[in-house]
Amino acid sequence: MSPASQVNIAVIGAGGVGKCFLSQLQGLAARKPSPKLNLVYIATSRKALYNENFAPIDVGSAIDSLASSSKAPHALPATVDYLSGSPHPVVLVDNTSSQDVAALYPSFLSKGISVVTPNKKAFSGSYKLWQDIFSAASSSGAKVYHESSVGAGLPVISTLNELIDTGDKVTKIEGVFSGTMSFLFNSFAPVAGQGGKWSAEVKKAQSLGYTEPDPRDDLNGLDVARKLTILARIAGIPVESPESFPVQSLIPKALESCSSGDEFLEKLPEFDSQMEEVKAEAERAGKVVRFVGSIDVASKSVKVGLEKFDASHPIAALQGSDNIINFYTERYGSNPLIVQGAGAGGDVTAMGVTGDLLKVLRQIS
Amino acid sequence: MSPASQVNIAVIGAGGVGKCFLSQLQGLAARKPSPKLNLVYIATSRKALYNENFAPIDVGSAIDSLASSSKAPHALPATVDYLSGSPHPVVLVDNTSSQDVAALYPSFLSKGISVVTPNKKAFSGSYKLWQDIFSAASSSGAKVYHESSVGAGLPVISTLNELIDTGDKVTKIEGVFSGTMSFLFNSFAPVAGQGGKWSAEVKKAQSLGYTEPDPRDDLNGLDVARKLTILARIAGIPVESPESFPVQSLIPKALESCSSGDEFLEKLPEFDSQMEEVKAEAERAGKVVRFVGSIDVASKSVKVGLEKFDASHPIAALQGSDNIINFYTERYGSNPLIVQGAGAGGDVTAMGVTGDLLKVLRQIS
Repeated sequence: MSPASQVNIAVIGAGGVGKCFLSQLQGLAARKPSPKLNLVYIATSRKALYNENFAPIDVGSAIDSLASSSKAPHALPATVDYLSGSPHPVVLVDNTSSQDVAALYPSFLSKGISVVTPNKKAFSGSYKLWQDIFSAASSSGAKVYHESSVGAGLPVISTLNELIDTGDKVTKIEGVFSGTMSFLFNSFAPVAGQGGKWSAEVKKAQSLGYTEPDPRDDLNGLDVARKLTILARIAGIPVESPESFPVQSLIPKALESCSSGDEFLEKLPEFDSQMEEVKAEAERAGKVVRFVGSIDVASKSVKVGLEKFDASHPIAALQGSDNIINFYTERYGSNPLIVQGAGAGGDVTAMGVTGDLLKVLRQIS
Repeated sequence: MSPASQVNIAVIGAGGVGKCFLSQLQGLAARKPSPKLNLVYIATSRKALYNENFAPIDVGSAIDSLASSSKAPHALPATVDYLSGSPHPVVLVDNTSSQDVAALYPSFLSKGISVVTPNKKAFSGSYKLWQDIFSAASSSGAKVYHESSVGAGLPVISTLNELIDTGDKVTKIEGVFSGTMSFLFNSFAPVAGQGGKWSAEVKKAQSLGYTEPDPRDDLNGLDVARKLTILARIAGIPVESPESFPVQSLIPKALESCSSGDEFLEKLPEFDSQMEEVKAEAERAGKVVRFVGSIDVASKSVKVGLEKFDASHPIAALQGSDNIINFYTERYGSNPLIVQGAGAGGDVTAMGVTGDLLKVLRQIS
């Protein structure tokens, strides 16, 4: 690819992360970078904003203009064709969590359109999609980065890739990969003892916005399983899907059929004694319980669920809704390389996306 | 810069880090990367290995061949001229800690030769050298990376750069930046209480190879001050030198004039009561003492020395000889982004260098 003096940016998604990304993009543009960055397309599932001949869209007013736009977005496959017509290299920024957009990454990439995204679905869906994405990128030379698909802006995927690319042997990855689960267990089973009732902590987390609107979408463990799927694949384990390894759901069997999140929360106190027993069992062993994901690379074993940790373990000492990821490798020996901090939120998720965009720009300019 | 199908690698330094780097370079080459990597020059201060017309040197036998080579290295300024004659782009890998090599980075960079290095001297010397290095790189388009100059292979510099480049405001950086100091204080003042006598811990650390041959080279705090200088400059504070901010030396005044490290160690027990009092004072406040560096960005205040931490603080809970770096930023809020792990050792230092080399290769190919 020859050096580009201008790069066109196309954005899909204008929710929490999308808005934060646009604000960061505006910051980049204000610093007059080389190459010049032009926003040329922005779309939600219902609306779109774009000009004739890829003329630039003002980034600062893009959200407002999009809201009042009467244009419908291109159908997704037509978006590939549309962006392929750009006279300058294009980076697609997918700020959705849509499986449909993810399914088209191989098409975008094979047309030379680079992709940066926090969208977990693309990299934790079928293993075939994973292979198609990276082989399309490899053939065309287009770039694909997805730092924020695990731990938001924390340097998790870049660190794992660098360990592997420089020849280290990763033996185990273990951590707390969900801000929701982190918050729940740091409150329910704090190192200092005590902690609230399980159902009360879930309700509190929901009211503070730490859970999805329906908290079962966090408690089923699938979000963590998706992140583990991504890391395991990078580590060389061809995990077929987030359903192909053991994932412990914290939704009691009897409440799986609840028709709503509200009904679920209403009935959850009936199961507090079960969680209390889990906590007490850990305490009798001098430990605390945490909801973790782990990958044992040698045995290719991936699992998600409750584990017990000594109070002095970094996973036990986590605070608030922080994530922690421990990389055990041959070079690092008995003490892991640890990355820790907020793993969710619009600003830090967008930061991973903007950081990825900068990596792409360095390579195509 | 147009895409390169081959990149020539020149290495200065063949000590602990240099040997590990060559082993990692061999691993890269075995994976048949694009661009093709050729080692074309390797030198110590006394010997060199290179062929007519930049013909490749076998990486696997380079250390042995260098030992038996009868060639002297090019004088450093002549090395710039020599490498400028390469028909392919060149990356200089400086695995020394030499101020003389560092002083020539602007010359290498202005000739289009990229530089990757763990050499702290270049980035913590005079502020003018820092400016010359980055302005030379900016003018020529050559790249310069130095991840391993702080925390070895830990993603410290890349993380700080990404926070800043994506528009976050870093408010404070605080951490344990020396494996030696980490080991000493984790043993001398463990969270669980007790711990050995100060002079005994220093002797133990020396005998285990955790200190420089003369432990005063660690205890004077200069190594930490160099790392803080680098991070502060990246954070936008124009620190003039590692001597331009307060650095607490743990060498008692009366022992500054000792003629040898052995004499120092012999007399150190006379000062154990001083350190015991420091520890006791922290304990009375329910805390432990640690040797940390900190940067307060708003007040442009940089300092290195002893501080007290609650037992539950991540800095207090550090283990072995690990480093920990806490980035406090606007986006991350009250809980910092934390990077932790081994911050010294040949393999992990070389990993940072090899990772930097990969970043350069992605950009020039």
